[in-house]
Amino acid sequence: MKYLIACLLAMLALANADATTIKVAFVLSEGANVMDIAGPWEVFQDTMLDNSTGAMPFVLYTVAASRTPLRTSGSGAPGLLITPDYSFDDAPAPDIVVVGAQAGGPELREWLKRQHAAQKTMLSICTGAFELAHAGLLHGKSATTHHDYADIFHKTYPDVRLVREVRFVQADAHTYTAGGLTAGIDLALHIVAQYFGDQQAQRTAKFLEYAGH
Amino acid sequence: MKYLIACLLAMLALANADATTIKVAFVLSEGANVMDIAGPWEVFQDTMLDNSTGAMPFVLYTVAASRTPLRTSGSGAPGLLITPDYSFDDAPAPDIVVVGAQAGGPELREWLKRQHAAQKTMLSICTGAFELAHAGLLHGKSATTHHDYADIFHKTYPDVRLVREVRFVQADAHTYTAGGLTAGIDLALHIVAQYFGDQQAQRTAKFLEYAGH
Repeated sequence: MKYLIACLLAMLALANADATTIKVAFVLSEGANVMDIAGPWEVFQDTMLDNSTGAMPFVLYTVAASRTPLRTSGSGAPGLLITPDYSFDDAPAPDIVVVGAQAGGPELREWLKRQHAAQKTMLSICTGAFELAHAGLLHGKSATTHHDYADIFHKTYPDVRLVREVRFVQADAHTYTAGGLTAGIDLALHIVAQYFGDQQAQRTAKFLEYAGH
Repeated sequence: MKYLIACLLAMLALANADATTIKVAFVLSEGANVMDIAGPWEVFQDTMLDNSTGAMPFVLYTVAASRTPLRTSGSGAPGLLITPDYSFDDAPAPDIVVVGAQAGGPELREWLKRQHAAQKTMLSICTGAFELAHAGLLHGKSATTHHDYADIFHKTYPDVRLVREVRFVQADAHTYTAGGLTAGIDLALHIVAQYFGDQQAQRTAKFLEYAGH
């Protein structure tokens, strides 16, 4: 019952959000995975509301422990060199937090705890679920992660109810974990549907030329 | 016949490439689309050869007119702030060039012309096809682009044989254009298959948790 009420309150919060300013913070640390960022980034970026205003409701920015440039995942070379827009100390309060696979760190986990306590919508992609679990945000809840890391996740966090072979799973009223890499596209489309309905999510997917799973 | 021989030579070049050093240059300019980069980036990054060495054959880096930081596509805020690894003047000679949607510019087009003349494998994603066409590399050849930009592409480049509603199409022995955004994943998987066979491409897709189209 408590969970149901929390869900209803979360849905009300979504429905009442100012459609022009849904702030999405992408948290970064060394080795941040490129596709884990890009899936939700592209979905939120390409969601244009099909109404008279043609409004783009999502505002996207990056947040890290500091503004020092860091390297994403790569192959045979260091990776994309990205300068974060904000530090955890000065970032605008987000409505949605996206946590992809990355090295993590204590500042990141503390910030995630604060955002979770403030009831922000929180999405992990791939092994980003390890960051949420490490921050204690998945205790006793359902979660998923990249299929190659499911066993180690289960061993490391036996208190989390691991769900295998799904695109994403909801942990609590405002927290979701996705599977590996491209699964982040499906989770972000689900969030778009929560805000603006299935038809809008389908329009966004079509723009991405993404058939979904 | 000339095309067939060119194709065979290109296939031989692929087969003989040093598997540990296939250099992939991602060209950047202002407004570079994030998913257009991320699709091929992730596919090439996650291709681990299933043999005794476990080698990661692709080396990924970014190239732009200068090393000045630039902003990718975004929504409600400036976009990801990326510092290119190299300028067109000092970049290592690539084996593969990836051209996503972006603002473009004369330096980029001149560099694309040089790489095409040097028979480098060239991939455009989304409206990156406009950059190849503008550089004169698609004259009289088949090409595709994002579905929302197909009409304007056809009007702007009537000498290019536009192919609609496909994931990607081959233009010449070493040039390919993909459709919008996520179509770049499929094109990059096709290139992996050209180098290392269908089974390797399927392993890479599985790691990405990508079902393909």
